[in-house]
Amino acid sequence: MKWWGWGDEQVAFTHEDKPALRPFILRHLRVDIAKPASGPIAFEDLRVPEPVLPGALADRLREVAGAEHVSTEAIDRVIHARGKSLRDLVRTRAGDLGRIPDLVVRPGDEDELAAVLRAALDADAVVIAFGAGSNISGSLEAPGDETRTVISVDMGRLDRVLSIDPVARLAEIQAGVSGPRLEEQLNAAGWTLGHFPDSFTHSTLGGWIATRSSGMQSDKYGDIAELTRGLRVATPSGMLVVRPVPSTSTGPSVREMILGSEGRLGLISSATVHVHRLPEERVILGYLFPTWAAALAAMRDIAASEASPSVTRVSDAEETAFSFSTRKRSSLLDKVKSKALMTFLGRRGFDVDAMCLAFIGYEGSERHVKAQRKAVARVIKPHGGLGIGTGPGELYDQKKFDTPYIRDFLLDRGVLADVSETAAPWSRLQEVYGAVTGAARGAFAELGVHGYVMCHLSHSYHSGACLYFTFAITPSGRREPLDEYATVKNAIQQAFVDNGATLSHHHAVGTEHARWLEQDISRPGVTMLRALFDGVDPGRNLNPGKLVDAEEYHQAMNLPGPSQRVVAESVPIAPAQPAPTSPEPIPEPRPAPQA
Amino acid sequence: MKWWGWGDEQVAFTHEDKPALRPFILRHLRVDIAKPASGPIAFEDLRVPEPVLPGALADRLREVAGAEHVSTEAIDRVIHARGKSLRDLVRTRAGDLGRIPDLVVRPGDEDELAAVLRAALDADAVVIAFGAGSNISGSLEAPGDETRTVISVDMGRLDRVLSIDPVARLAEIQAGVSGPRLEEQLNAAGWTLGHFPDSFTHSTLGGWIATRSSGMQSDKYGDIAELTRGLRVATPSGMLVVRPVPSTSTGPSVREMILGSEGRLGLISSATVHVHRLPEERVILGYLFPTWAAALAAMRDIAASEASPSVTRVSDAEETAFSFSTRKRSSLLDKVKSKALMTFLGRRGFDVDAMCLAFIGYEGSERHVKAQRKAVARVIKPHGGLGIGTGPGELYDQKKFDTPYIRDFLLDRGVLADVSETAAPWSRLQEVYGAVTGAARGAFAELGVHGYVMCHLSHSYHSGACLYFTFAITPSGRREPLDEYATVKNAIQQAFVDNGATLSHHHAVGTEHARWLEQDISRPGVTMLRALFDGVDPGRNLNPGKLVDAEEYHQAMNLPGPSQRVVAESVPIAPAQPAPTSPEPIPEPRPAPQA
Repeated sequence: MKWWGWGDEQVAFTHEDKPALRPFILRHLRVDIAKPASGPIAFEDLRVPEPVLPGALADRLREVAGAEHVSTEAIDRVIHARGKSLRDLVRTRAGDLGRIPDLVVRPGDEDELAAVLRAALDADAVVIAFGAGSNISGSLEAPGDETRTVISVDMGRLDRVLSIDPVARLAEIQAGVSGPRLEEQLNAAGWTLGHFPDSFTHSTLGGWIATRSSGMQSDKYGDIAELTRGLRVATPSGMLVVRPVPSTSTGPSVREMILGSEGRLGLISSATVHVHRLPEERVILGYLFPTWAAALAAMRDIAASEASPSVTRVSDAEETAFSFSTRKRSSLLDKVKSKALMTFLGRRGFDVDAMCLAFIGYEGSERHVKAQRKAVARVIKPHGGLGIGTGPGELYDQKKFDTPYIRDFLLDRGVLADVSETAAPWSRLQEVYGAVTGAARGAFAELGVHGYVMCHLSHSYHSGACLYFTFAITPSGRREPLDEYATVKNAIQQAFVDNGATLSHHHAVGTEHARWLEQDISRPGVTMLRALFDGVDPGRNLNPGKLVDAEEYHQAMNLPGPSQRVVAESVPIAPAQPAPTSPEPIPEPRPAPQA
Repeated sequence: MKWWGWGDEQVAFTHEDKPALRPFILRHLRVDIAKPASGPIAFEDLRVPEPVLPGALADRLREVAGAEHVSTEAIDRVIHARGKSLRDLVRTRAGDLGRIPDLVVRPGDEDELAAVLRAALDADAVVIAFGAGSNISGSLEAPGDETRTVISVDMGRLDRVLSIDPVARLAEIQAGVSGPRLEEQLNAAGWTLGHFPDSFTHSTLGGWIATRSSGMQSDKYGDIAELTRGLRVATPSGMLVVRPVPSTSTGPSVREMILGSEGRLGLISSATVHVHRLPEERVILGYLFPTWAAALAAMRDIAASEASPSVTRVSDAEETAFSFSTRKRSSLLDKVKSKALMTFLGRRGFDVDAMCLAFIGYEGSERHVKAQRKAVARVIKPHGGLGIGTGPGELYDQKKFDTPYIRDFLLDRGVLADVSETAAPWSRLQEVYGAVTGAARGAFAELGVHGYVMCHLSHSYHSGACLYFTFAITPSGRREPLDEYATVKNAIQQAFVDNGATLSHHHAVGTEHARWLEQDISRPGVTMLRALFDGVDPGRNLNPGKLVDAEEYHQAMNLPGPSQRVVAESVPIAPAQPAPTSPEPIPEPRPAPQA
């Protein structure tokens, strides 16, 4: 993994095979991406502090995990210091390392994992679990003023599928397994977990659970919270064992307390999760909709219909335009086809600047896929949806895990790009969309910077959907770039909670979203989390400062302290007011054609 | 509501129109139900203790809710003293009232509810929410040695659907609404919640949430945990507001902490829940399977197929026989039909003593229902399933809420009947079934009593199902009847947790299941619950002694204390050993025909 950026050392994003991208970025962000500005600091130039490490603790950890699995090397400590949020990348690239861990330990099994926790608690050290390091909410970094020893527990050796139960369709899997290694082991036996977040290649089962992750095919398979049935977690009071039962009424769900706990309750050793037989058929179709409002209405009506596609994703006009700008250099045939499509769209009354690209996926038996495609076609027809075949879907499917590499490419060119995602009821989506894009553009104007904001709907549920926003700015040079970034990011997050949406759908809270937690789940909700964390971990040894108590981060981001915060109030589910920036209203649901 | 038994005063179970029932009970329990033995004590003969009630608290509550909504009448206090578990009924019928509440208050809105809580906390009183009083896990009774004032908060006036959002398909509903009143309001606008527990007529939305309820059509609509999105709860630290978002990654789920909290975290004021349009068509079909093993295999394969019925329910041979014994006196035509069916079954090789009756339900558009019926037919054919039309299903549908009345009928005749339900992975179901029926029959033999145990599978999930056991004994007369009952009940619950099943699928923990909680969710799981309860409610004013800390109940039931308890260990998901009583193995899954 790159210590200064996303993903594999040998992989990088390039614009050279994408002729439309350079003019697109030049137009919107006033930056010529053909001219890289600056890279990260050289590793040799980093000032890596000496570890705060009592010899007795280091000795005990070497005894527990074996000396070869305990490291105090600078590169290990730097890689394990934080995740890959925009703020993480900017600081690390500039050589601002923060409070890096003093030691990295790699336990090889559950007993070693439990013994590592025991040793750390006995020595009053801080313990932070590390999966594959792709967290983008500030969940992995120790507080800057932490004086105790900080231990990063790298879960990478706990990477095996332990057993598959073909009758119950459950698999027990170690928490440190990465996405590709997990699917490789399951696929070999004919199974899949079906969990594919954007971070798939650089995230782990334990990380997904600790942050309540969601994947590209969660419409079919469910979010990780639904997939996870059993758990084994090393906690200060021993090994927590959650049985893999399909449902239970044994009090407040302990399973759901581990989900999203970000390392504050213990170290997840393994989980028993739903698995599915690899589908006979799998297809992702492209569709075009004349407007964002029409596309949202179509997705909403699919959710209310008897159709059950595996993927429902639609980009707004801005993201559609960006998407087209990243198309590879095309053959003459492609150009002819493309031109024919544009002519056809024009005749159908499509405005090319307003149209929205959607992907809808289908999985299962041939019969099922055929029936689902028909059912979806019936629902989207009244909304002007137009099928454009498998080509765009296949392309999306191939490059879906490459997107995070773009951030580093843009950072090399001085552009700051980031993402913020939320979920809200269908009745509020257009209002949330209008408020968020309005807030982002308002922040661009306030700062006097060039910026771009775009959005896609990424997951559909019975009552609402996830909206995923991507934004980028070219800093003005008049202020610290991270301060200008913070102004935009904060405006977007504030627009979420002010409009009845949640502060994060699947990126978790960490430190970067902690400021809005109380506005989302209300003060008594925060009281409940504090009660749980403080009761289980009275010494605050387990990943302190995440979710709640992230004051230091708030100061760094110029955010008001808790005393200035407004207590969350219920937002009515059906908005009484028109949306702040009055986007086109979504058509009312009609009696949906049934599957 | 009856103070001494289940349901409406004017409704009672009768055997008179069911000619096969008397011989059935005589054969299995050696009791002649034509001769009632004894009824409950007369209300006038109850010794109702004086309330422990400081005048200032009573005055403040009258001020808050209005004097007419504060009651210290004996009948109110007795009705609100406990739920309707077998143990509750036996004690109440005998005049053993326990620690009844000192006062019943009926707040009329959320502000009054919050003010009642505030007043109670200020006076260091105990607060127990009361929905419709049908809890059967001992969740409603105050500890016998409680010296503080005990307030029962009757939620019955909070019974309105506040709003329906037709776009997001969400409704905000007050927590005190009963099942019928809720559906009546939703149905009037064309909607349904789709939540129909056995207790439907005498339970409330708030009660369902507080106990993690499940309903007869939860295969389609989801358990209450899934249906519930938003919550408003009066807590000691103020009004908890959980936003009705479709999914979120804001830390451990506060929503899931209220679900199953049994009044230990606060008083639920309202919830925002999924609603669905009333289905065009709804049909429940009867099926017969040659054996229990074949029926279980069919249900498992339906869950793994692309079919999605709304109800999957199958009775074992014992429950099938009981079910046939409760058929009403039939016409000559019925008799001819019935005889023809038996002849037909005989020719198909069915053993009438081994066959199992199943109900599978379908809901939706005509097209959908037709496709689902076909898909189910393809799956069950290889398991010998035989459709027997809509007649039995319609009958089941009509009388599904009447079952609880039988307990009182049997109690009048000296027979103790009760239920215990669990959930386990598909791979363990037959083992759990064998262990539980074996444990019950072992207990009958040990006690030297006549008993009967029967079972149905009531809900299917991806990875497993709920098994619902009903058992009855005719006490020997040599010991306290409740002691003999406890021997059987404890053997069944112990068999659940010893075989990888959960101690309760949807009846919750209360006091009656608290003894096994640690064996189910492990000691660190109990630590997490304690941390949450003690942190939120340090004075233990909120329904104390439920879920954890139910020592007094354990003593009454002759159960070992916590020091003698075994810590739960993980049970492997695929059993290594044959089941204790070696029931017929379930056929292996075959590549299922697809929908």
